[in-house]
Amino acid sequence: MDFLPKLDASAEVPLYRQLFEQIAEEIRTGRMARGERLPATRELAGQLGLNRTTVSAAYELLETEGLIAGQVGRGSFVLGRGPSKLDWVSVLGREGTEQANLSGGVISFAVSRPSRELFPLEAFRMSARAVMEREDLADILQLGSPAGFEPLRQYLLESARDSGLAGPDDDLLITNGCQQGMDLIGRVLVRPGDAVAVEDPIYPGLKSLLTGMGAQLSGVPCGQDGMDPSALERVLERDRPRFVVVTSNFQNPTGGTLPLASRRAIADAVRRAGVPLIENDAYGELRYSGEPLPAIKQLDEHGGTLLLRSFSKVSFPGLRVGWAVGPRPLLERLRAAKQSSDLHTDQLSQAVLLEFAQKGRLHTHREKVLRAGAERLAATLAACGEFLPKGSWWTRPEGGMNVWVRLPEPLDAGDLLGRAQRAGVAYLPGRFFAVGRLDPGTLRLSFAGLSPVEIRRGLEILGSVIDGELKSAADRSYTPSPAMV
Amino acid sequence: MDFLPKLDASAEVPLYRQLFEQIAEEIRTGRMARGERLPATRELAGQLGLNRTTVSAAYELLETEGLIAGQVGRGSFVLGRGPSKLDWVSVLGREGTEQANLSGGVISFAVSRPSRELFPLEAFRMSARAVMEREDLADILQLGSPAGFEPLRQYLLESARDSGLAGPDDDLLITNGCQQGMDLIGRVLVRPGDAVAVEDPIYPGLKSLLTGMGAQLSGVPCGQDGMDPSALERVLERDRPRFVVVTSNFQNPTGGTLPLASRRAIADAVRRAGVPLIENDAYGELRYSGEPLPAIKQLDEHGGTLLLRSFSKVSFPGLRVGWAVGPRPLLERLRAAKQSSDLHTDQLSQAVLLEFAQKGRLHTHREKVLRAGAERLAATLAACGEFLPKGSWWTRPEGGMNVWVRLPEPLDAGDLLGRAQRAGVAYLPGRFFAVGRLDPGTLRLSFAGLSPVEIRRGLEILGSVIDGELKSAADRSYTPSPAMV
Repeated sequence: MDFLPKLDASAEVPLYRQLFEQIAEEIRTGRMARGERLPATRELAGQLGLNRTTVSAAYELLETEGLIAGQVGRGSFVLGRGPSKLDWVSVLGREGTEQANLSGGVISFAVSRPSRELFPLEAFRMSARAVMEREDLADILQLGSPAGFEPLRQYLLESARDSGLAGPDDDLLITNGCQQGMDLIGRVLVRPGDAVAVEDPIYPGLKSLLTGMGAQLSGVPCGQDGMDPSALERVLERDRPRFVVVTSNFQNPTGGTLPLASRRAIADAVRRAGVPLIENDAYGELRYSGEPLPAIKQLDEHGGTLLLRSFSKVSFPGLRVGWAVGPRPLLERLRAAKQSSDLHTDQLSQAVLLEFAQKGRLHTHREKVLRAGAERLAATLAACGEFLPKGSWWTRPEGGMNVWVRLPEPLDAGDLLGRAQRAGVAYLPGRFFAVGRLDPGTLRLSFAGLSPVEIRRGLEILGSVIDGELKSAADRSYTPSPAMV
Repeated sequence: MDFLPKLDASAEVPLYRQLFEQIAEEIRTGRMARGERLPATRELAGQLGLNRTTVSAAYELLETEGLIAGQVGRGSFVLGRGPSKLDWVSVLGREGTEQANLSGGVISFAVSRPSRELFPLEAFRMSARAVMEREDLADILQLGSPAGFEPLRQYLLESARDSGLAGPDDDLLITNGCQQGMDLIGRVLVRPGDAVAVEDPIYPGLKSLLTGMGAQLSGVPCGQDGMDPSALERVLERDRPRFVVVTSNFQNPTGGTLPLASRRAIADAVRRAGVPLIENDAYGELRYSGEPLPAIKQLDEHGGTLLLRSFSKVSFPGLRVGWAVGPRPLLERLRAAKQSSDLHTDQLSQAVLLEFAQKGRLHTHREKVLRAGAERLAATLAACGEFLPKGSWWTRPEGGMNVWVRLPEPLDAGDLLGRAQRAGVAYLPGRFFAVGRLDPGTLRLSFAGLSPVEIRRGLEILGSVIDGELKSAADRSYTPSPAMV
């Protein structure tokens, strides 16, 4: 040890701590190297005029911190700088880590995804086997185009053209599901501080994506009939958003669907404002009742709408394949952003899904999903009527995977969640979805992954938890005031 | 038409243009609706006291703009707002669209990817078939975890632990190849205006990704021995970068590999500066000669290094599966960014690659790729010696897919490219890779996708194009000066 620590007996910091810190600094900066021997405690105590136990305490602390190691009979040695770890918390900054733990053996209405029991495994296997026999298998395995696997891209573009979703000025880009579609939009359009208009409430994945990019969310109220067009007009005027994200069918979380008049009004409002519209239609294929309506993309003659769709909700969410259809100048920029993000979407899944769709298996599977979905939605609505307390309100979606519930006052769906989970049922409370205004009584029921029996049982449990809560709330409200003596 | 245009005969704008603009505005705002009939030219001219040709000129312009249509004998009708398209160029802003068109029937050294002829299709098919028989096939198809398909994640994490690449404080995240690994790093760490230290030259995918995020690139010179550690120290001091990206093996584009001493020096320099190190090792598995060296990640006791690896270069780039190994606080943040980006990596390819690796097929394939790569690299270096002009210099990589060439002055590899392509050979010139300093004589030869015969022929063509260029440059230099009369 080349240096002699300088200690200050009058300082507030104890001597052993001062000694520890000075030696630790020598080790962390590399001035004392790995393997270097420290003076014996007795020797150092003598040099510094300290009690030997002071030196021992400092050495113990150094050993606890992993900076030195003592070997019996051989003294103490520098271990290295190991423990002077990079301080990732200071590099990264702090961040909220609010997370709902919704796992465990409960009936969970928390995740908006299809039921794995419905997966047509044999049809999927046949599609995968057919891909294995393709003559261009090597091309599927080779580096591909950022725009997507061309045979799938062409298939989707032709379908979009046939149904009027794509016009002559439109192009199509394959993405890793709608989530990446939104991500690419954000990368291309959002500048930190930009306002972005979204439905309020909206699913957490979009909230965290856009706010993570520095966007300010402008919430536009959304209910049974989807986004409110007149509220959107006010937001367009007040916040001048960079773009608007709207869900035309079976919005997540409300299940709301835009009537035709609202679709026209929204297309009109963004056109007048000169603002791009992102039409998120991940759930559009899952209509259980009512007449299909034209997409806003079809109503828009102005070329200002981008439509996002996906295979995930209607087939296999574990395969990440979606697409974006829209005006060519925007698509070119999205394709460049896609290339920067991850070069291109995985081609094996694209090839298998193309085969699955082309052979009519997607259509057959969709019929099955629609029957099951209708049944599950009906079970959810019936059980809400049976088990939720008087004064509750909920949406009546015509498709999708989610029903939005508002419990009567003074119930707070967030406060209730813990009790519900202990009783065996889970859901996501309103705060996960709120943009500007939190309605504490709200919660989302994602029903598509549960059987009708599970749905009924889950709502029965939830109903009894709520009854208990209402009773104790009533008890609390009868608590007599302190006597006025 | 309910309104009467108000024209100003004294204005600079011609009357027909004023008339056109006012009617166009009525149509674009929807005040004149689709199908509405315009007054006859004669009638409107009379109302406004204009020459009829003035009105005709305005109508013609409206028709050219697609706002109205004239029908013989029926007059003119409003077509709608269709053509008032959203001005995407003004929404998106202008952007350079520099692109090298390197397709066509040429021998292309332009793309750094493996040869499709080497793909072991039968071994791949066997792996895919085995996945189809897995009992958990439905789980593979269901929505998964942002961290990756757990069986693959565990397999990679255990391999990383066994080889000392992952310590007890490390975790592993599956990404869509190394490109997404870099993208997630950028999302988590880069704030617009931050400096990021990278090798100079560096591959275009990293340049455009980081600059697209608003980073300022600080180039650290990189050659035969990879990044120069003393230059890095100067950059760390001068630019205080947010993080450093380094390629330990077979850098793209130079093919350079860091000697052990440089690895230690770089680990030391970033530790002292308290700056995270991203070790990009996409090519690390492709060593054709020389002794393998420890990764910087293995030398770093400070917990400041994140290592990026991938299946793409050593197996199938069309399947987008890579991974990041590093300190847990950073990995947690990357996982959240991954979830925002695209929820998770496609699970079908993850399952197939796991099977491919576990059954030893990846190992067998890698042996084949190494033999072919060694042969192709040798062919490239030999052909450079045979066909490139005196005064040329090139790197001698020990692996990977790229050789970096510097042609003698006054040759400009960018200027030469057009002639080379017309003669039947393509490459990427230095300007695609330059960060701070462009050396115009440089170019990248990506050899892995070409057979030795193609490589030799390609360099023979390139050599003769260069010879022609050198001759005409010599002729130009003999041009006599104008007579001094």
